[in-house]
Amino acid sequence: MITVDEARALLFKLAAPLPAEEVPLIAAAGRILARDVRARRDQPPFAASSMDGYAVNSAEVEQHAMFKLIGEAAAGHRFEGRVGPGQAVRIFTGAPLPEGADFVVIQEDVSRSGDLITIANAPGKNDNVRPLGVDFRAGDTVQAPRRLRPADIALLASMNIDRVPVVRKPVVALISTGDELVMPGEQPGPDQIIASNTFGLKAMLEEAGAEARILPIARDSAASLITAFDLAKGADLVITIGGASVGDHDLVAGVAETLGMERAFYKVRMRPGKPLMAGRLNGAAMLGLPGNPVSAMVCGRVFVVPMLRAMLGLGAPAPRLNQAALAADIGANGPREHYMRARIGADGRITVEGNQDSSLLSVLSAATALVRRPADDPARAAGEVVDYLSI
Amino acid sequence: MITVDEARALLFKLAAPLPAEEVPLIAAAGRILARDVRARRDQPPFAASSMDGYAVNSAEVEQHAMFKLIGEAAAGHRFEGRVGPGQAVRIFTGAPLPEGADFVVIQEDVSRSGDLITIANAPGKNDNVRPLGVDFRAGDTVQAPRRLRPADIALLASMNIDRVPVVRKPVVALISTGDELVMPGEQPGPDQIIASNTFGLKAMLEEAGAEARILPIARDSAASLITAFDLAKGADLVITIGGASVGDHDLVAGVAETLGMERAFYKVRMRPGKPLMAGRLNGAAMLGLPGNPVSAMVCGRVFVVPMLRAMLGLGAPAPRLNQAALAADIGANGPREHYMRARIGADGRITVEGNQDSSLLSVLSAATALVRRPADDPARAAGEVVDYLSI
Repeated sequence: MITVDEARALLFKLAAPLPAEEVPLIAAAGRILARDVRARRDQPPFAASSMDGYAVNSAEVEQHAMFKLIGEAAAGHRFEGRVGPGQAVRIFTGAPLPEGADFVVIQEDVSRSGDLITIANAPGKNDNVRPLGVDFRAGDTVQAPRRLRPADIALLASMNIDRVPVVRKPVVALISTGDELVMPGEQPGPDQIIASNTFGLKAMLEEAGAEARILPIARDSAASLITAFDLAKGADLVITIGGASVGDHDLVAGVAETLGMERAFYKVRMRPGKPLMAGRLNGAAMLGLPGNPVSAMVCGRVFVVPMLRAMLGLGAPAPRLNQAALAADIGANGPREHYMRARIGADGRITVEGNQDSSLLSVLSAATALVRRPADDPARAAGEVVDYLSI
Repeated sequence: MITVDEARALLFKLAAPLPAEEVPLIAAAGRILARDVRARRDQPPFAASSMDGYAVNSAEVEQHAMFKLIGEAAAGHRFEGRVGPGQAVRIFTGAPLPEGADFVVIQEDVSRSGDLITIANAPGKNDNVRPLGVDFRAGDTVQAPRRLRPADIALLASMNIDRVPVVRKPVVALISTGDELVMPGEQPGPDQIIASNTFGLKAMLEEAGAEARILPIARDSAASLITAFDLAKGADLVITIGGASVGDHDLVAGVAETLGMERAFYKVRMRPGKPLMAGRLNGAAMLGLPGNPVSAMVCGRVFVVPMLRAMLGLGAPAPRLNQAALAADIGANGPREHYMRARIGADGRITVEGNQDSSLLSVLSAATALVRRPADDPARAAGEVVDYLSI
């Protein structure tokens, strides 16, 4: 068996960065920018007033100075003339500064009588002018790769980028296996349970930027598995859930190898989730996750989400661990790296759940963190700081 | 002018919780559960083996004991008979435990010869049985309200909840105003700039759970604004951007009042974003945001996202502030609460950006935090801890 880090390194070799596609700006939020984009214009494209007031020549600005109003400049409508000595133009926020003016006296500092204005209060030093290009210049770049946040979308809009090159979403095919499974909404037989892993993983992987497709449940027969692998064609990543253990009814590894899978590894020294298999099948990455619901979800967080980041061009670091102090003592860990369901309290301390059985979705749903225990980690006392993954 | 907290309290009065709707489980991730749902079944619905091995009666379990194999139980296929004295059933993970058996000897501890097995290694104390209902019982609840995370989706699936009651998404209509604006992809005139606020806000509000619609740009005329308000009908929240200041070209407040807006407040003592207006118009909440891009985005984060949380039934607390130590000194704040663009460094310390002008989207895009300065906050030295909002 290999370690979690060794498994992740092998998985990253299966996860080639995907190509770019163009999407409309309005659909680009949350996507990964695929290459640097350059501003198509200066912003602002002219020196602009940052306040409502009066545009004048700064050399003439002093308290009690008087000016004659010769026109008006509003956002979208510049004053076409020139501001000469003793002259002022009424100006509004965002309007281009008229020729001859380089200062805006804010309206609160001015008294007005018909076409004459007087600077009534001592004007500040601030010229209330935004210089041409102070936000960005044509050709300035927004650098890739990055996940496009709301402020990035606004910035791209102001650069007049209406179509955005983003990394194509990884397409993930999710196949759950087992005669015991039925889909939610169906009536299970007395020996059956409801398929839950594909639903939980779809939510997790789509949050991470994938497009996940739930395929029909594969039954415990070679023919049914072959059909499922056929239906998965075209996916970048094929994930089977269950059937990767050593039991006589666990067929996945055998069928995948018959179909030509080149195996990268089999079994990882971790809890939950030991039976884990990976390889390459028909040009796609293939991953076999364990069937216990918690194992499948934890492997999703520990292996699949980082793999998706690599496919999205975000590089291949290990997931970022946070640190918190334990609220209570925990026992020694065994020989496998262990991801334990835990909760962060209002006081910031972390409580490891008592029952870590990998079948308990109720415990996973209540958890907000996975405490990562290294292999053979000794017992830890309340107050000691441990590493955890946020979930 | 009122404070940020006072404004938020008034906004929450405009933000009534929205009704529930049912969606398929597969579309429920990230949505807000509207009411408690109850498990339709026990999980597991039978005592089940947690390992591959041999099911026997625990009273007979000791090293060197021998058993005769009488059948097999696999996931989805129980053994229909009863396990009598000296008998065992081959069993696989997830299979129902046969009648008469209450212990699974793992296969690693057994040697087998034809139909006879011997417990070769000292069996552990663990019975390797998951009791009926150990994860949840029929009638156990998943409690509302909560944002449905991937593990919740898996849990709901295993409870056989195929349709989920979630809070309807708040529909937000976004209207930018101003003769100076054109849409991304258009060719602006010499005095024009590209509309960016609606795009950035749509991304931000949809991340927070809304469905945001970008309406056509309203021009600086009463007729154009009236058309825009008409197009906004049916929205739960109508947001105008720009035109809420006191300049002669700022028409929004006047037109909204002509159309019957009951004003809740006008102007908030904050930076960026002083001109901010709120009220109720035709049964919808109405909010007028300032036109400077950074002001609009900061007001979105400080006011609109919390309003959406209230509409989604998540209560109405102020946004959660985090704390970090300053990387460098900052000057005293003025009389308005100030949300300053800032970056968290790799060392966890926070650096406030030098230029806080509210027109600079490039600065906002580079920021990862908004440092919140109370009104009249004195100068702060490097190392002092400040509050911030993550963005």
